[in-house]
Amino acid sequence: MELKGSSNLSTLASSNDHGENSLYFEGWKAYDNDPFHPSRNPKGVIQMGLAENQLSFELIEDWIKKNPQASICTPEGVQAFKDIANFQDYHGLPQFRNAVAKFMGRVRGGRASFDPERIVMAGGATGASELLMFCLADRGDGFLVPSPCYPAFDRDLRWRTGVQLLHVECKSGNNFQLTKQSLEDAYENARKANIKVKGLIIANPSNPLGTTMDKATFKMLVKFINDKKIHLVCDEIYSATVFRGPRLVSVSEIIEEIECDRDLIHIVYSLSKDMGLPGFRVGIVYSYNDKVVSCARKMSSFGLISSQTQYFLASMLSDEEFVGKYLSESAMKLANQHDLFTRGLEEVGIKCLESNAGLYVWMDLRPLLKEATFEGEMDLWRVIIGDVKLNVSPGSSFHCHEPGWFRVCFANMDINTMRIALGRIRKFVVQESDQVLQVKKQKRTSKRSHGLTLSFSSQMYDETCSSPRMLSPHTPLPQSPLLRART
Amino acid sequence: MELKGSSNLSTLASSNDHGENSLYFEGWKAYDNDPFHPSRNPKGVIQMGLAENQLSFELIEDWIKKNPQASICTPEGVQAFKDIANFQDYHGLPQFRNAVAKFMGRVRGGRASFDPERIVMAGGATGASELLMFCLADRGDGFLVPSPCYPAFDRDLRWRTGVQLLHVECKSGNNFQLTKQSLEDAYENARKANIKVKGLIIANPSNPLGTTMDKATFKMLVKFINDKKIHLVCDEIYSATVFRGPRLVSVSEIIEEIECDRDLIHIVYSLSKDMGLPGFRVGIVYSYNDKVVSCARKMSSFGLISSQTQYFLASMLSDEEFVGKYLSESAMKLANQHDLFTRGLEEVGIKCLESNAGLYVWMDLRPLLKEATFEGEMDLWRVIIGDVKLNVSPGSSFHCHEPGWFRVCFANMDINTMRIALGRIRKFVVQESDQVLQVKKQKRTSKRSHGLTLSFSSQMYDETCSSPRMLSPHTPLPQSPLLRART
Repeated sequence: MELKGSSNLSTLASSNDHGENSLYFEGWKAYDNDPFHPSRNPKGVIQMGLAENQLSFELIEDWIKKNPQASICTPEGVQAFKDIANFQDYHGLPQFRNAVAKFMGRVRGGRASFDPERIVMAGGATGASELLMFCLADRGDGFLVPSPCYPAFDRDLRWRTGVQLLHVECKSGNNFQLTKQSLEDAYENARKANIKVKGLIIANPSNPLGTTMDKATFKMLVKFINDKKIHLVCDEIYSATVFRGPRLVSVSEIIEEIECDRDLIHIVYSLSKDMGLPGFRVGIVYSYNDKVVSCARKMSSFGLISSQTQYFLASMLSDEEFVGKYLSESAMKLANQHDLFTRGLEEVGIKCLESNAGLYVWMDLRPLLKEATFEGEMDLWRVIIGDVKLNVSPGSSFHCHEPGWFRVCFANMDINTMRIALGRIRKFVVQESDQVLQVKKQKRTSKRSHGLTLSFSSQMYDETCSSPRMLSPHTPLPQSPLLRART
Repeated sequence: MELKGSSNLSTLASSNDHGENSLYFEGWKAYDNDPFHPSRNPKGVIQMGLAENQLSFELIEDWIKKNPQASICTPEGVQAFKDIANFQDYHGLPQFRNAVAKFMGRVRGGRASFDPERIVMAGGATGASELLMFCLADRGDGFLVPSPCYPAFDRDLRWRTGVQLLHVECKSGNNFQLTKQSLEDAYENARKANIKVKGLIIANPSNPLGTTMDKATFKMLVKFINDKKIHLVCDEIYSATVFRGPRLVSVSEIIEEIECDRDLIHIVYSLSKDMGLPGFRVGIVYSYNDKVVSCARKMSSFGLISSQTQYFLASMLSDEEFVGKYLSESAMKLANQHDLFTRGLEEVGIKCLESNAGLYVWMDLRPLLKEATFEGEMDLWRVIIGDVKLNVSPGSSFHCHEPGWFRVCFANMDINTMRIALGRIRKFVVQESDQVLQVKKQKRTSKRSHGLTLSFSSQMYDETCSSPRMLSPHTPLPQSPLLRART
């Protein structure tokens, strides 16, 4: 639909190049039009497209009750209101930068330390990612991105900067691990196409895979960017979601172990996933390059963190006892929720890529595809959204090169909602696998049917089981589509 | 000084084109290196370069004490914490948009109303201004800017967008009012230089003039942009600082009175000045153009307002009784402070442009220039910063075309600090006017000496008078230069 007022705008505003016309965002629309609620709308769409960490809020709420002085909007803290509300220094509150630097070290098990002077604020990871692109690359330059990758990179990294994203294909054959050959190939292809490659961005832990990068691969990759003299941006926003071994290896550790030009190394961080605070818009750029720190700080003016929020977080993250407890309990809860979900899927024969981090799993629905194409994937996705009423995200929106993979989020719901979701999946799989088998029989191409096993009790995931309300009365009303800033 | 790591960065990061190498920002550096404090550093630099509204915080603090449920970080409000901390819908909290729309109408005396659906969030006015440029103009396009204008427009509007700012010269002869002829001239010059003019941006109330635009000029201007089919961006971030008549006329009223293409009309708003909350980073884009609203909302992902802050402000701005009281008391306090300061200046013969708004005055120091050039202005400024120890901002940094004007902020200090500042000015004027007169006599060019009168009691502004501490113990330590996001 053509909106009124299209004439005489910028090319950006006149085109649809914003990266939000992806199935990834489409799924949210479906959810928003018919959101599940255990009592008010039990047949509605369950949101499994949103990588939110909702499992450990009780710990934060308890902390708040015990620390009213941490807010400038309490009788106990209001004497700081004036100075904090006036504080617009783009360096950020010193106590905020100190606390974030310490927290980043803590999340990485104390194996790396971070200098508060290098902490630059940005408007969420979204703002941080774009800001780094503005610092590192010019319009038309290329950035390598191993895929499957985060769908909104198209918006965050590319839209306003004009940087080209060059996907590096990762394959299911080796569990989507990055290889030297694929990097070299992508680099060489860019060279042939006359695109100047300025860097490589990786997400570690990976979104959508939920895996962490092993040390050998990481060292290969750092050597690669160092040899090519291109930048490495490490998106480490899921650092604290690692819920079991192998532990996270951050780039900050790698550069202590092998020689490389540190001016090429940059980290994107955020508290949206690790603390479950996406609304607070805490994005961090941490660069080892002085010039980038200086430029990024000037650019941070376009997306500073509210000083009210800085002040609150400075207090909370400075409480080392709380941080320790939060990190360990959160990891434990994620592990439990992950295991509950993947075991439920296993019981109906659905496999996921083995993972140790993230708020989602990378689900393999290749056996359910009527044909092994992206059209087949989209057909399946439409059924899952429309009939099964689960908003999961298709692999194509993550630029996955193989059809049939889906990202499914598990940490934004309570156990009862998860059980309902699993119940729906079970019913669907029974019905769908029968159909697929039939289709495949008809096509006499039954070689790929994986023999889905359906062994669990149908009672277990009955949707009618009573459950507490998932949404509190304070839940904001769902809004129209394409809404969330980052997931 | 060349920073480490300069190679292989973007053109933006490699150049010094960020617009912060202006005397405007330089002055802050001087303040930060030696900040005045009545007891700890009574000889330090007094900050008069910062357009902060610090006069009415007591009202907000009282409101906070009475409304603990307005914060998600109080025992009374914490039950909303989870949902608000998770809220990342880029439309913003509905109650926040409603409250801001209503507040904008209230600030404009109820003579215009605003549609919450058109309220788009951005990272302060800084983020809002840049965001609009990204929507309206391409790299290389031109935007007309009447000058003197806000110094950081160079950063906000131009730096990352690549838009060219085309200054429209306003002159002291008619109190710096914008004329049709100057607009036509600037437009014609751009045409000759093959620059595509995409719009005009005005600040109303003006920064640095502290004046509001009269209706006749405003109508001329809207007719001008409508005839040329170019955009009009109205920066109305000082709307509520109008402390006496003539009242503010917003563009939202003008377009009710004359015919124009509303798709060309856009407003930048903020709570940094009107509520004195720059740390909260509340920037608003309000556009009458559907397509711009849609595009701006997508771009707002790069600088959303913390949901913690949205929630708090939604509560406070929804309290109509509080808003009414705040607006009237704040205007009264600004009027008093303005009058105290300008009367003090008058007593030593210093005149300011007559003004009815803003947190500053536009001070005419032409009589004190040793020569009527920008070098002369800079010499005078260095003395004021270095010897008089006042951080005021020279006209050249506002792209003023006539030397000798300075912007001086008066609302970021208490009365005692202001008295000290006036005392320093008095001493300086006595000494300087003697010197200027001598220089001018020597040069036999005494025709421009304005005969400064020095009639007030020297006791009145004695620096040694006791005063309460200006900074509370919670004042964040001053940071290194170029710090504030917007002023």
